[in-house]
Amino acid sequence: MYEGAVQDLIDELGALPGVGPKSAQRIAFHILSADSADVMRLANALRVVKEKVRFCENCGNIAEAPTCRICQDPRRDTTLICVVEEAKDVEVIERTGSYRGLYHVLGGAIDPIKGLGPEQLRIRQLLGRLTNVREVIIATDPNIEGEATATYLARMLETMQVPASRLALGLPVGGDLEYADEITLGRAFEGRRLLS
Amino acid sequence: MYEGAVQDLIDELGALPGVGPKSAQRIAFHILSADSADVMRLANALRVVKEKVRFCENCGNIAEAPTCRICQDPRRDTTLICVVEEAKDVEVIERTGSYRGLYHVLGGAIDPIKGLGPEQLRIRQLLGRLTNVREVIIATDPNIEGEATATYLARMLETMQVPASRLALGLPVGGDLEYADEITLGRAFEGRRLLS
Repeated sequence: MYEGAVQDLIDELGALPGVGPKSAQRIAFHILSADSADVMRLANALRVVKEKVRFCENCGNIAEAPTCRICQDPRRDTTLICVVEEAKDVEVIERTGSYRGLYHVLGGAIDPIKGLGPEQLRIRQLLGRLTNVREVIIATDPNIEGEATATYLARMLETMQVPASRLALGLPVGGDLEYADEITLGRAFEGRRLLS
Repeated sequence: MYEGAVQDLIDELGALPGVGPKSAQRIAFHILSADSADVMRLANALRVVKEKVRFCENCGNIAEAPTCRICQDPRRDTTLICVVEEAKDVEVIERTGSYRGLYHVLGGAIDPIKGLGPEQLRIRQLLGRLTNVREVIIATDPNIEGEATATYLARMLETMQVPASRLALGLPVGGDLEYADEITLGRAFEGRRLLS
């Protein structure tokens, strides 16, 4: 459609997740009129991320060294491992400020449709980290794939006699009972706690 | 939040139009796991656009030479000039295949709130192009700013005795009368044509 360089940019932008043809065009025109230094900073940030960022040898989190900030932090409780699907889940949990243990990033969840079985996930590496661990907290997503992965891990951990736990399912804080779906509400009933 | 390079990339992506913090994070994680060659192609496309693409000296359209493809094309009718707000509007009109004249990109519309007056637009350059022009088609957007700009241009062109026209307003083809807003419907009545 457009002349060479602009169309190339629109094509490349359109290949990013969540960027449709209209957004790609809009971003490309923004870049055309944007300050050159700003655009070069973006181009450079892309290059630097691919050159510098790798995955932690220990837990699979993103890192700029062989191991990540969390694995390097001496204040973390090394007897707790929280298992998540993706590196971004680590950040989500860190933001709560309520967990001081280590993490283990699986790199996805068991999903036969996508061809992801236990062998494609970093489960073997998790099993190699279980010495002196008092609890593994399974924090995979509360959906079919995440639950399947949690069940699989729970069985593995049981045979290895390592205590495993799963994040609670229930009503979201600040939510409205009226708008809760029936499955969540059912889980909230199952997980109800006696007061005092 | 994240380690240096990843957070830098999220910040740069988040500064793009239509990319919120969540999308920026999603794109950044996509880039982390994407093929290095693909990411380098995107970084390069950004650089090339800033280095190679400029604006046509004649009409203000995007160009990779001093003048754009359309101004260089000897088959175009040089006695017609279609005035648009932005370079992307040129492409929109080109796609219809129903116009074979030249363009003039104003670089926006008159908008006092944004501090855009006639002096900030490429109106002076338009007035310098009117020799041997038989019609100027004003194709600014059909909104307040576009209409104000069209009215301003129409007056200027009248004093210079250059015929000016404005794109028709009316019902969109394939639309449904029921869903037309009252202003569009009113314009469709005003612009009605006798059949045969």
